[in-house]
Amino acid sequence: MNRRMIFSTVGKMLCAEAVMLLLPALVGLYYRESCVQALLISAAIALVLGLLAVRIFRPGTNVIFAREGFCIVALAWIALSAVGALPFVLSGEIPSYVDAFFETVSGFTTTGASILPNVEAMSNGLLFWRSFTHWVGGMGILVFVLAIVPSVSERSIHILRAEMPGPIVGKLVPRSRDTASLLYKIYIAMTLLQILLLLAGGMPPLESVLHTFGTAGTGGFGMKADSIAGYNPYLQWVITVFMFLFGVNFNLYYLLLMRRFRDVLHSTEFIVYGAIVLLSVGVVTANILPIYGDAETALRLSAFQVSSIITTTGFATANFDLWPTFSKAVLVLLMFIGACAGSTGGGLKVSRVVILAKTVQKELKRLCHPRSVNAMRFEGKTLDETTNRSVLIYLAAYVFCFVAILLVLCFEQTDFVTNFTAAASCFNNIGPGLNAVGPAANYAHYSDLSKLTLSFAMLVGRLEIFPLLIFFAPGIWMQKSR
Amino acid sequence: MNRRMIFSTVGKMLCAEAVMLLLPALVGLYYRESCVQALLISAAIALVLGLLAVRIFRPGTNVIFAREGFCIVALAWIALSAVGALPFVLSGEIPSYVDAFFETVSGFTTTGASILPNVEAMSNGLLFWRSFTHWVGGMGILVFVLAIVPSVSERSIHILRAEMPGPIVGKLVPRSRDTASLLYKIYIAMTLLQILLLLAGGMPPLESVLHTFGTAGTGGFGMKADSIAGYNPYLQWVITVFMFLFGVNFNLYYLLLMRRFRDVLHSTEFIVYGAIVLLSVGVVTANILPIYGDAETALRLSAFQVSSIITTTGFATANFDLWPTFSKAVLVLLMFIGACAGSTGGGLKVSRVVILAKTVQKELKRLCHPRSVNAMRFEGKTLDETTNRSVLIYLAAYVFCFVAILLVLCFEQTDFVTNFTAAASCFNNIGPGLNAVGPAANYAHYSDLSKLTLSFAMLVGRLEIFPLLIFFAPGIWMQKSR
Repeated sequence: MNRRMIFSTVGKMLCAEAVMLLLPALVGLYYRESCVQALLISAAIALVLGLLAVRIFRPGTNVIFAREGFCIVALAWIALSAVGALPFVLSGEIPSYVDAFFETVSGFTTTGASILPNVEAMSNGLLFWRSFTHWVGGMGILVFVLAIVPSVSERSIHILRAEMPGPIVGKLVPRSRDTASLLYKIYIAMTLLQILLLLAGGMPPLESVLHTFGTAGTGGFGMKADSIAGYNPYLQWVITVFMFLFGVNFNLYYLLLMRRFRDVLHSTEFIVYGAIVLLSVGVVTANILPIYGDAETALRLSAFQVSSIITTTGFATANFDLWPTFSKAVLVLLMFIGACAGSTGGGLKVSRVVILAKTVQKELKRLCHPRSVNAMRFEGKTLDETTNRSVLIYLAAYVFCFVAILLVLCFEQTDFVTNFTAAASCFNNIGPGLNAVGPAANYAHYSDLSKLTLSFAMLVGRLEIFPLLIFFAPGIWMQKSR
Repeated sequence: MNRRMIFSTVGKMLCAEAVMLLLPALVGLYYRESCVQALLISAAIALVLGLLAVRIFRPGTNVIFAREGFCIVALAWIALSAVGALPFVLSGEIPSYVDAFFETVSGFTTTGASILPNVEAMSNGLLFWRSFTHWVGGMGILVFVLAIVPSVSERSIHILRAEMPGPIVGKLVPRSRDTASLLYKIYIAMTLLQILLLLAGGMPPLESVLHTFGTAGTGGFGMKADSIAGYNPYLQWVITVFMFLFGVNFNLYYLLLMRRFRDVLHSTEFIVYGAIVLLSVGVVTANILPIYGDAETALRLSAFQVSSIITTTGFATANFDLWPTFSKAVLVLLMFIGACAGSTGGGLKVSRVVILAKTVQKELKRLCHPRSVNAMRFEGKTLDETTNRSVLIYLAAYVFCFVAILLVLCFEQTDFVTNFTAAASCFNNIGPGLNAVGPAANYAHYSDLSKLTLSFAMLVGRLEIFPLLIFFAPGIWMQKSR
């Protein structure tokens, strides 16, 4: 285990976080808020900790393997969240450190689950920081670091493998640093476009920026108690469309740039993703039409909520906790499916669901015709046995983790639906659940044990399970370097 | 597709059902009940349909393959349930045919879910028939048929593979008919022992026999509105122990007979099964102790309920719907785990859960040390890749089926917990769920669509998913024989 390399890399990321913390400080300065001091102190702490780590753990060798990559990813998300929680506590706006940690993990993992009983009472500086963690987390703090920190190629690949959501790492261009920088440019361009469209619809500048951060990272932190419900239909539609777009595999945007339109239109994952969204919007609209009376409202609310949940964003324009059982069931199902691989969204990912369905179908054929050989095709290529197997194992690991999280939550006296959807919502990085964690409620009522469990759930879900399990595996830190 | 062979085999089974229907008719005669007529008419219908099928579909060849085996199993359970429902309708004791079909599927699949609002109003003859379907279904009507109907060896193997619950068909003795007959002897011996022990505890003869049928088949149909709650602690403990025993892999009883005690004690599945039961009983007892006050009651109720749910029997001695959230969550988790492979129980099966856990553990090792080779061991042997893979695929198919069933149920206005646990309970062949399908309630309030969906769920779950999917696969019946 190249422990020095792990700590020094995370040290560099803490230094980067110190710089990031200056942005909300500037916002606080502009609004003359008292949170500026807390932000600057936190930035100083991040810088000192980061520099110390870089200095103390100067690595003897740059060579690292997969396990070091996984540990860097896991430690980075934990460390950045632990330090990123400080401004909330130091400013007194979130007095409990566990609450602040929960909120920051929720931010960096782009979950959007909140313990704030009254979001509108927060200072603009801290609201900016809160939403900014979504934006940073969205594309992956590590892809971010890959684009700005010099790195060894072996390391980059391993970090990227741990980081990129979904079963297959599509290498857009040969060198992974170029990939990271390209993904980042697309991400920034889409962010700017959404901000402009929101401004054009009359949303105030700060709100435009913050809601875009929440959309781009598929996070879901907003600034209003009623999330997006208070904005006009145009703004709601813009956010609906951008949520959908940020849930698409970013490889497709690269293909679009290369004018390979055929490849985009033939992407299995994109087609299935689109079909699931259209179908869900259709059935939910029909199901909630009697409540709202007019078709435009029902369609708008349904499209917004379906996009919000499947992309694991978590914004709300309606209290869907009051919708009929069937609509709620569809939304809970979408929570587990999640967005496309290679997007900023969470969940199981559409590509995994497609591969799982194809595997079951192939097994049925094999049982009927034991001697026939059927290769499985995915995205126009034969799916290799290793990827197929790893998707199957991922499902097993996913189920085990979900059950474990749910069991710890059930020590609470809250009802089963609340606990089930809280676990599902945090594990899949969405935000709101149903009942006592519904869109009109929050996670404040949970005990510290449950809040830490849910923070762990958000991290496990965001990092595709294995990095965090390896990080906490007994004995892993004692292994010798090879 | 050897269609003739499928229909003629199922025809023979209908003839066997005609004979079975005479037993409850005798009980009815003894109690001078009016249901005798309905039972005799149903027996006649079963006989005529069976003889017609045997005569019309005289097969040209005895050769069948896996797909025919799957279709025989699927059709047999459907046909026997469809005909077995007749006595309830003809006697007028269950006026709706859909209700009667649900009840009979629930019997043959050893589920124990009921639509009866008042079980104590039923005639003894029909109560006997209802519980007898558990006993017949428990060991598998097809293993039953294997032991009495002359068969080709190739066919036997395929039927057994489709029938035996769990991932690995342990061949006790080389010829499968001998296996079937041996398993049957063990089953009968244990049934007789339980009847004697219940009689010794003062339970009336008919109740002893019927409750033993429900225990042996891990079914759960009782005769009382409060299930087993009204019986004395000794009787409750006897049933607890026998539920546990009928959830054990029957291969172990064979090993016991062979005096291979070491093998029994080293069985991974048995150890894990025992550990899960002990652990669950422990935590549930601690959790419900404040409700009941004294330790003996809490332990007895907890041990009973844990055994009842993990073995997928479904008897109840307490309304566990009123227990704390944590205990309910443990029980819901046990619903999915289920009993041991090769037992009469349902669910995912302990052996599959063990293999899945070991697979995830192995994947973690592989990620850390990509070049190392770790063979996975299970039950003292290296687990071959094909079995491992089929368990992983089974999980995927299991999840897909569960989600599909749940979605259809959610068209109902009943709450999410009711629908979720109804789907879980029927799919895993347990019986009661929570809330509106809790141990003090029943399934009568569901619509016909939902009742048919749940009947389908019981069949899919009982037959280990694939046979039923193949049976309903488009085009399968048109395929040429090879």
